[in-house]
Amino acid sequence: MIKFTINKNAFQNALRITKQAIGSKVTIPALTKLKITVSDDGITLVGSNGQISIENFLPATDKDANMLISSTGSILLEAAFFESVVSQLPEVTLEFTEVGQKQVILNSGKYEITLKGLDSEIYPRIQDISKETSLKINVGLLKTIFSETVFAVSTQENRPIFTGVHLQVFPDKQFKAVATDSHRMSQRILNLEESNLEFDVILPSKSINSFKNVFANDEEDIEIFINTSQILFRNDTISYYSRLIEGSYPDTNRLIPKNEDYTLDLVFDVAELRHTMERARLLTMQTTNGTVKLTVSGNSVVTTANSPEVGSVHEEMTTIEKAGEDLVISFNPEYLIDALKVVKEPEVRIRFISSVRPFTLQPKNGEDSFVQLITPVRTN
Amino acid sequence: MIKFTINKNAFQNALRITKQAIGSKVTIPALTKLKITVSDDGITLVGSNGQISIENFLPATDKDANMLISSTGSILLEAAFFESVVSQLPEVTLEFTEVGQKQVILNSGKYEITLKGLDSEIYPRIQDISKETSLKINVGLLKTIFSETVFAVSTQENRPIFTGVHLQVFPDKQFKAVATDSHRMSQRILNLEESNLEFDVILPSKSINSFKNVFANDEEDIEIFINTSQILFRNDTISYYSRLIEGSYPDTNRLIPKNEDYTLDLVFDVAELRHTMERARLLTMQTTNGTVKLTVSGNSVVTTANSPEVGSVHEEMTTIEKAGEDLVISFNPEYLIDALKVVKEPEVRIRFISSVRPFTLQPKNGEDSFVQLITPVRTN
Repeated sequence: MIKFTINKNAFQNALRITKQAIGSKVTIPALTKLKITVSDDGITLVGSNGQISIENFLPATDKDANMLISSTGSILLEAAFFESVVSQLPEVTLEFTEVGQKQVILNSGKYEITLKGLDSEIYPRIQDISKETSLKINVGLLKTIFSETVFAVSTQENRPIFTGVHLQVFPDKQFKAVATDSHRMSQRILNLEESNLEFDVILPSKSINSFKNVFANDEEDIEIFINTSQILFRNDTISYYSRLIEGSYPDTNRLIPKNEDYTLDLVFDVAELRHTMERARLLTMQTTNGTVKLTVSGNSVVTTANSPEVGSVHEEMTTIEKAGEDLVISFNPEYLIDALKVVKEPEVRIRFISSVRPFTLQPKNGEDSFVQLITPVRTN
Repeated sequence: MIKFTINKNAFQNALRITKQAIGSKVTIPALTKLKITVSDDGITLVGSNGQISIENFLPATDKDANMLISSTGSILLEAAFFESVVSQLPEVTLEFTEVGQKQVILNSGKYEITLKGLDSEIYPRIQDISKETSLKINVGLLKTIFSETVFAVSTQENRPIFTGVHLQVFPDKQFKAVATDSHRMSQRILNLEESNLEFDVILPSKSINSFKNVFANDEEDIEIFINTSQILFRNDTISYYSRLIEGSYPDTNRLIPKNEDYTLDLVFDVAELRHTMERARLLTMQTTNGTVKLTVSGNSVVTTANSPEVGSVHEEMTTIEKAGEDLVISFNPEYLIDALKVVKEPEVRIRFISSVRPFTLQPKNGEDSFVQLITPVRTN
């Protein structure tokens, strides 16, 4: 039966990370539990919602944890409740004692709580992934690529592959991430320094969103392992497993126009363009089609929107660079605002082909490594 | 037809205050509008939800507003939309021009928006209040009294008088505020320096909650005016009207025990007691009756709670002072936590009569000016 003492803050941190995988809406009741396994080497916390699973190891040698393990074992505890109890303990040290019949007593100062647990044998096993070949990548870089693409995934469940981000690593060490919901697309390409792992997977957007809460240290490198149905991100103590979306992702390269197709090339200040779109959106939110109209005519670039009920908007815009033909094009300003949010450089290049063809956005100095595409709306 | 220019921030501030009275759920469609009246003296913004009304005057002489009035008039504009448009204007100055057919053009820099308005004649009139006698009171003080009582109002609409705070000013210049939901009561008494107004009113809790957002300056004094159905709080520029709740509030003084009735007197550190209750609440939230048990026996004071499904809690407590008889009493920790949140002094005195009689809380050094009462729960 388990018995250990540990620093509350170190334990709470480990719980907070593991909890990222534990949801309240799960089909298997055991998955609302946290699995605690204590060995002589340390404490392992496991959480899972069936889609993602986190295995978090706190080594006995961790200095912050100030751990003293008297007796080993394994037990399941109600995850959400256990975490809130630990977070409110009065003292800096907690004592965890299993007392039989799968009951646990937590002591901290003058506070004592008895918790009813369950046999850890009922907890589902995490499917293992071969550790033969891996890709090593920086956490901060991965977070950037994820945030540059994940916003563009589809929220429609009828075509599951578009609810994830398509990640590919090619033999030439090119790493490509792409997401689209058929109205807009975002694609990021990166050249890895080294890689002996090739893959082609679709990672669910939910897994991407919790990734940033699990790996806090942007400076560290983590390893990626893949099998047919799962991906594993791993550092020294945390293993983060995610289910992959089955299916084959369409080739999105063919959607990106060729340079010679463009007829109009505009460079804007990112913040200014975003504010203009946000002001226009106030009105377009009141309309049924929700579009703004961009009118490029001679030296003038104007955004307009019109709602028969509420009123109309007219804003002249400043371009930093402008070359090409006149154009009138309508689109949903929401997509342009989303696109501009992930452009970290101060200037953005937007290129157009015609009023019915998608237009592209790129950071002005970003070459072709980061391309976004927005489909216009046909209006009459 | 109205025409003026004004500093965006000053105008936005005035809108933000007026908007406190404007709700989206109103029975009269005109009340979703903001009424703007421009005279040579300045701009008056009026908003109302039928329960509260705010009249906010921006004088033409206000230096921050940098106002230039070219033409006067009155118009109604959709309040929420107008406020979000103003808040996102690109430049520091805005130009407001009525152009006929109740349309308004707002210009700011290169941005222009046309808004459809309505005739101000359809807007309901605010019922006037006699300005003969008033009570002058400090805003900060009023906010304190409100926050010390309003949390204890009932949320049940079947007895409307208990959804408000009972405010009384007596001939001896005593100002009394009290609220109760029949499970707990909070009463604050204050001696005014001067007052030539007596009253006995029930102010809706919603009016109290928006009061603090309307009067930002805790240092200033405001005037209170009353008639049979309304109260008016007023400073130099803002008039804040609220409907009163009809009915007669019961005498709550008789609920407060006499000193000689108490059998047990405990003094706690407020923060420590609150944390103990918050830890116990984690468990009581999982139980059906939701109560903790306080057991006072000899020198020991212990909080316990028990849930057949989840587990049990046991915490020994430290008292700063302790006198009286042994006691076992059960109550909802939520009420004690709420009560402790408004005790601003570091120590609280809690006095008990028996396990079935309400117990009282007072700041240790607060004498009788601030008393709270909590009713225990009978358990078997």
